Amino acid sequence: MHCFYAPQLIALGANSLSDEEWRHIKALRIKPGETIRLSDGLGSSQLFEFHLNDKQPSIVSLSDVNFDQKKSGVHLYIPMTQQTDRIEWMLEKVTEMGIISLSIIITKHSEKVKYAMDRLQRIAVSAMKQSQRSWLPEINTFQSWPELLHALKGKSIFIAHCEQGNKVLWGDRKVSNPHVLIGPEGDFHPAEIQDIIDMGGVEISLGEARLRTETAGLLVVSKYYL
Amino acid sequence: MHCFYAPQLIALGANSLSDEEWRHIKALRIKPGETIRLSDGLGSSQLFEFHLNDKQPSIVSLSDVNFDQKKSGVHLYIPMTQQTDRIEWMLEKVTEMGIISLSIIITKHSEKVKYAMDRLQRIAVSAMKQSQRSWLPEINTFQSWPELLHALKGKSIFIAHCEQGNKVLWGDRKVSNPHVLIGPEGDFHPAEIQDIIDMGGVEISLGEARLRTETAGLLVVSKYYL
Repeated sequence: MHCFYAPQLIALGANSLSDEEWRHIKALRIKPGETIRLSDGLGSSQLFEFHLNDKQPSIVSLSDVNFDQKKSGVHLYIPMTQQTDRIEWMLEKVTEMGIISLSIIITKHSEKVKYAMDRLQRIAVSAMKQSQRSWLPEINTFQSWPELLHALKGKSIFIAHCEQGNKVLWGDRKVSNPHVLIGPEGDFHPAEIQDIIDMGGVEISLGEARLRTETAGLLVVSKYYL
Repeated sequence: MHCFYAPQLIALGANSLSDEEWRHIKALRIKPGETIRLSDGLGSSQLFEFHLNDKQPSIVSLSDVNFDQKKSGVHLYIPMTQQTDRIEWMLEKVTEMGIISLSIIITKHSEKVKYAMDRLQRIAVSAMKQSQRSWLPEINTFQSWPELLHALKGKSIFIAHCEQGNKVLWGDRKVSNPHVLIGPEGDFHPAEIQDIIDMGGVEISLGEARLRTETAGLLVVSKYYL
């Protein structure tokens, strides 16, 4: 069954599909009478039947709204990579695996990469539809380190870095809704690591191999999945 | 420290670097006196010092050959995806995570995709160097299902599919050197699943989400890593 994104499914009902989603229905050659699933990205989904009258497409609801209780998942904080398609690809994978949020952060050793953030939003929507999930990951950006620290207050924080430290192997311990920070290629600055430790953050190890930034992100989410 | 690939490191010694690796040394602007690491992809590595005399590059060994005992890891069997960059990206990630072998398989529901296999080899070499590993994953292809079954004889086999079945959640059990089969987009044919069960293979589940082929491959390897 094909899934589509209808962020205002509950508020506005069946006629609230965006032009983009109508185009997607057309591109997939959905046939009259075929059942499709709409999700609002906030846990609600509903089944509809596709109709075509005089070339005018419409959908008629087949079921009540179903609400998926949000499961615990990872909140990932990661710098944008120089090759932006690396983070894009990672986002697709971690959306399939059910990440809760992805935040692009700026650190001392990460360069500011010019990037249109709405691309990430589109990738997340597409991966949510493809994997038939009802929750769309939140996509955030933090323009400064203090802004990030402020947002992390009171959270279960974990930081993956390559410096020496009192580290726990990631995956040995499961907490609900962990907020995990991944360093840039040049790693976090020691002062940044100390900031996180001062907030009660836990240093984590991802093994001995030298992993790319986006591989570390993938690994953190996939070890938490299942 | 930068790593380079010297498949004949042990047999031929320091002067056996390929033109491609010399070009890579040049591209990275390795400076005279800098230490580099050569690995043969078969577990052996050695440190060298880079020299430049009258623009002629050379390397001088700084250490004995170090041999890394091969750790247990996953042997992955997966069909080529229509968008071949999806498998390429996955190979880079699973090489960083230390996969032992990747085999491209052909199943009833997977289309033959025209693909130059030496691309995969180059991607694996590059990811091995980047992640500072000493083992290069073996890249294989199987042109038929019977050929694959023959090769799997006597192995610890696992099969990930979307049909009903007596499944074990992947990650709950660790065996050494598992051989894991991932289905194509249209899933394995029931007869193929039965073939694997008849050989003593274990059916595995990767959770409830609908995962892309390459995401399933990633997940199998990353759950095994650490």
